[in-house]
Amino acid sequence: MLRIPPIPVPDHESSSSARAHQGRLTKPAGSLGRLEELSIQIAAIQGTGKPNVTRKAVVVMAGDHGVTGEGVSAYPADVTPQMVFNFLNGGAAINVLARQAGARVSVVDMGVSVDFPPGCGVIDAKVDHGTGNIARGPAMTRQQAEQCIERGIEVAYREFDRGLDLIATGDMGIGNTTPSSAIAAIITSFPVEKVTGRGTGLNETGLAAKIAVIKQAIQVNRPDRNNPLDILAKVGGFEIGGLAGLIIGSASRRLPVVIDGFISTAAALLAYEIEPGIKPYLIAAHRSVESGHHVMLEKIGIEPLMDLNMRLGEGTGAVLAFHIIEASVRILNEMSTFEDAGVTDKS
Amino acid sequence: MLRIPPIPVPDHESSSSARAHQGRLTKPAGSLGRLEELSIQIAAIQGTGKPNVTRKAVVVMAGDHGVTGEGVSAYPADVTPQMVFNFLNGGAAINVLARQAGARVSVVDMGVSVDFPPGCGVIDAKVDHGTGNIARGPAMTRQQAEQCIERGIEVAYREFDRGLDLIATGDMGIGNTTPSSAIAAIITSFPVEKVTGRGTGLNETGLAAKIAVIKQAIQVNRPDRNNPLDILAKVGGFEIGGLAGLIIGSASRRLPVVIDGFISTAAALLAYEIEPGIKPYLIAAHRSVESGHHVMLEKIGIEPLMDLNMRLGEGTGAVLAFHIIEASVRILNEMSTFEDAGVTDKS
Repeated sequence: MLRIPPIPVPDHESSSSARAHQGRLTKPAGSLGRLEELSIQIAAIQGTGKPNVTRKAVVVMAGDHGVTGEGVSAYPADVTPQMVFNFLNGGAAINVLARQAGARVSVVDMGVSVDFPPGCGVIDAKVDHGTGNIARGPAMTRQQAEQCIERGIEVAYREFDRGLDLIATGDMGIGNTTPSSAIAAIITSFPVEKVTGRGTGLNETGLAAKIAVIKQAIQVNRPDRNNPLDILAKVGGFEIGGLAGLIIGSASRRLPVVIDGFISTAAALLAYEIEPGIKPYLIAAHRSVESGHHVMLEKIGIEPLMDLNMRLGEGTGAVLAFHIIEASVRILNEMSTFEDAGVTDKS
Repeated sequence: MLRIPPIPVPDHESSSSARAHQGRLTKPAGSLGRLEELSIQIAAIQGTGKPNVTRKAVVVMAGDHGVTGEGVSAYPADVTPQMVFNFLNGGAAINVLARQAGARVSVVDMGVSVDFPPGCGVIDAKVDHGTGNIARGPAMTRQQAEQCIERGIEVAYREFDRGLDLIATGDMGIGNTTPSSAIAAIITSFPVEKVTGRGTGLNETGLAAKIAVIKQAIQVNRPDRNNPLDILAKVGGFEIGGLAGLIIGSASRRLPVVIDGFISTAAALLAYEIEPGIKPYLIAAHRSVESGHHVMLEKIGIEPLMDLNMRLGEGTGAVLAFHIIEASVRILNEMSTFEDAGVTDKS
């Protein structure tokens, strides 16, 4: 039986205090728009009128997908472990953006097909060596689905214990837009065509084939729309379940969680179905190019901060959003008030 | 007679080189969307396949507006110099965001009503003590309009000589959305109602009065739509003309220029009408809440990077965009290639 930790209710007093302080700063009330809202949200999450986002991490969870056997990706499955080594060596996009943002990168093996050498730097939370081919049967057992969530929660706790104020989700897994689209279709009830995109670069024929594979996966597995664990087990992925756990664990530790793109949002949607109390902890980083991303964001009820035509994953959009989030907190903490600066307020 | 410096054509070879390099980096081609495009644009501007945006500045130009006598702003005109002191003391929003972005703030008096004490830190480029009330007559003489542009160009040169890779525009001037809307209406031919917003916070009655004032200003002054200097002289502002000059001077020095919100975009529109060759140097930071901002951006043909419901000015949106611009350049310069990282590319 899956154990979900209690999720605290964000602190209303801290958000009120932050909102009142925003009104005293030397700018027309509301003129910093979403920066003001973000600072108020983070104040409520952290339970203080003076929030702090100094210590930042992006957790990149990796897993392989049996459904790649159906030709749903423009890249071969070997690329999943190759990219894990690229993360460890600091050469991937997420490493570059994390260095800029002053964030650490934690790479987690949730279910890559190969085993990584001990001491290589990967956090080992492996549930299995790649999922089953969802076009033919379930991705994983029910017990494995529970393990994904539980290990994701544990990763969140461990990151928190290392010292953390702000966390971002990232993913790596060749083929993982396919299970993410399946999850989106099942939970939002939108047709598969509406929530399926080109992933890393399918052409028209490849996209049509991918849509057919997802429809088949849903037909073969018949997941229970009202049971997120059943959905994860039948058409999900190890890194997707791990990220859902990471989000739940982070919320239970009062960490603001920045959700990256399509795969991370599928994970957030599962987490939200498991425990709706996580919603106030979520910050949607950006609107991905991938079709159907906005449908999932709307289902949860969160509005992305940016729209930069990105579709890479790895947590790249989330870490880019760190700058905006940090700006919001600095504005709250560092700006002068009308009184202190001797500036006349609106009458 | 106004002297406009020659604007170099961006370097096609450098952008080709940057584009080719983006295709070798360990990510699906195009998956970083606007980050990739930005890096290619900056490579062309700086004339190198390895662009660099280490040294950053935001130039905040201040001026007063006689039209405040018509009650077009929610704040009294005294707030212009008060906010200049707030900038000098480091307490305004732009100071907070510039510190975060590692950018210096240069504050320029283009035409504030009061004189600032020598040595206080303001760059003196004052053309006059506030503009005339455009509802009754011209904002300034034709000669003063030329002075605004020329002094703005000189400020750009001086900033460049201090060491600079990336520049942002900022404005301060109670009442300055009124001349900006007038400029927008004249150049885009959109009705005044479509390009006039609430500024720092007018109510419905105040907005209607402001629209009437702008219509009157256009009727009284009859600016020549095909003569940007005439438009600046008749319905503009000293800081708006200064910013137009700053943009032209920056482009002549091959600096990427990040355009902030409504007022900065009115200045960019004037600069573009004076010298269309500046366009490749412009980066639009964000879409302001102020009505009609997008109309001006579309007239120039530039797409903003963010939409965060901001409407403060001072360069706040532009400096926030510095992080995205820096990310784009770091991606280009720091990521591993498929070959170096031993990652299999799409077949």
